[in-house]
Amino acid sequence: MKAFQVVRGKLKPVSKPLPKLRRGWALIRVRLAGVCNTDIEILRGYHDFRGTPGHEFVGEVAEVRGVSAVERGRWVGRRVVGEINVSCSPLENLHPIPDSISDEQAVFVEPLAAACEILDQVTVRKFREAAVLGDGKLAQLIARVLRTELPRVEMYGKYREKLSLAHGAKIETNRVAGDESDFKRIKEHFALVVEATGSPTGLRLAQHMTEPLGTLVLKSTFHGAAPVETWPIVVKEITVVGSRCGPFAKAIALLRSGKVDPTPLISRTFPLAQAPAAIQFAQERNVMKVLLKPNSGENSGRPF
Amino acid sequence: MKAFQVVRGKLKPVSKPLPKLRRGWALIRVRLAGVCNTDIEILRGYHDFRGTPGHEFVGEVAEVRGVSAVERGRWVGRRVVGEINVSCSPLENLHPIPDSISDEQAVFVEPLAAACEILDQVTVRKFREAAVLGDGKLAQLIARVLRTELPRVEMYGKYREKLSLAHGAKIETNRVAGDESDFKRIKEHFALVVEATGSPTGLRLAQHMTEPLGTLVLKSTFHGAAPVETWPIVVKEITVVGSRCGPFAKAIALLRSGKVDPTPLISRTFPLAQAPAAIQFAQERNVMKVLLKPNSGENSGRPF
Repeated sequence: MKAFQVVRGKLKPVSKPLPKLRRGWALIRVRLAGVCNTDIEILRGYHDFRGTPGHEFVGEVAEVRGVSAVERGRWVGRRVVGEINVSCSPLENLHPIPDSISDEQAVFVEPLAAACEILDQVTVRKFREAAVLGDGKLAQLIARVLRTELPRVEMYGKYREKLSLAHGAKIETNRVAGDESDFKRIKEHFALVVEATGSPTGLRLAQHMTEPLGTLVLKSTFHGAAPVETWPIVVKEITVVGSRCGPFAKAIALLRSGKVDPTPLISRTFPLAQAPAAIQFAQERNVMKVLLKPNSGENSGRPF
Repeated sequence: MKAFQVVRGKLKPVSKPLPKLRRGWALIRVRLAGVCNTDIEILRGYHDFRGTPGHEFVGEVAEVRGVSAVERGRWVGRRVVGEINVSCSPLENLHPIPDSISDEQAVFVEPLAAACEILDQVTVRKFREAAVLGDGKLAQLIARVLRTELPRVEMYGKYREKLSLAHGAKIETNRVAGDESDFKRIKEHFALVVEATGSPTGLRLAQHMTEPLGTLVLKSTFHGAAPVETWPIVVKEITVVGSRCGPFAKAIALLRSGKVDPTPLISRTFPLAQAPAAIQFAQERNVMKVLLKPNSGENSGRPF
């Protein structure tokens, strides 16, 4: 099968044998994959990752091993997405995708689940409104998920083009300058704020925007230490909630219900063979989701 | 009356007329006052404070104004402590002190209340144990308060002499080096951690010590930005709870019950006239609580 491997910070095309399946694992023919910021960070050296990156995908089960014939019939041919905290795909990590959800929607399940995690951690409905700091892919999904529970969600971001994507989802938007002037201009009375800028400097403004006794959800997983004054958390008695991966089932349910449609966030789809160009394009300004689509021949092969 | 005022970072003795009482306010004859770290920070320029510092006190109501004779009889002569978020003493800020609590205990009500705030914010009893990072005055009170609810509290601090004060209160203690070696040595599986070092660098170790999905209470109100990596909060999905001032009634109840006795934390009591020396002494290594005791003549006067 065709794949790309990280070699000294670059993606190199390789032909790999199909993986040997363990009992209870599945071989998946990828239909569509998403480029995540983590993939970009991996190329910059994050976690000293070696191997084939790519954890946002929707695919079809080509083969399973070590299960009953009934179980096998249930899985083979099924479209699925997979949880990401193991590198391969045991069956218990797979979630079938209903036919009413397109590949272009399903490929968002993993990041949408991360957005949904907030609903499991915070009783969002007890708030009147929420502020989301950031206008990138994750911030956009978070704002859409919060909007399913709240009458008013305000997004604060730097880029007009990105913010405009939120309007169709009935999200209010505000531009920030990214400098000291923001602290004078932006109101500081949000009881619920989500920091999703992906930047170490976002935390300071997010603290500023959170009212006393308010809740501040941290979603940014950048690495690197930023000088942060933490006394506002103490003096305002803010509750800070670290929030990472989330429930796939909830994300799939939101897509199925039509309450959240992430497809306007797709900037471009590249063939898998152009993965290096896709990763490059994903880092350009105002680019949102970049997808990779294997040609039908590239990843099928004959599953042993 | 005799007082001290902050003049260019130093305490200067002054003779002031007794304050003119507003309706519903009380004049209090201070019996004993505590030196707080905030007082020391004030002398270093914190909040550009001018006037007479001192917010930890126990005193006797000398006079009240604008209340009924019955109400007046209820207050005058009563020992009280006062909440601190206004500079003077309206009656609603005063808490009477039962006779069974000594002046030396009552002078701790304000910082003890700050420690008790954690009980209002976190369901402490659902944990099996807690770690307190810091061995200073506030950390000592916090560990004692947590110990009333938990079978095991571990204090992590730099100074053997300070840590030894905790043994009498059945608190386990561990020394930290304050450098990178701590990150290798100290276990990281506490579900409840309280950061009370008073230092910007404490947050990093506190994050390290908090287990995934754990709760980290921040009590340090130092000013100044420290370079902090916040990704562990996100990756471990830690809940960070900012915690400031607390319930006086709860602190008084704890003193009355005998469950917490803060008096072993008193390092020395100075006469009020030696306030500058007391503040100096309070900053010396291994010194814990320093008290100031007005002579009977110094603060009585004739309350108009």
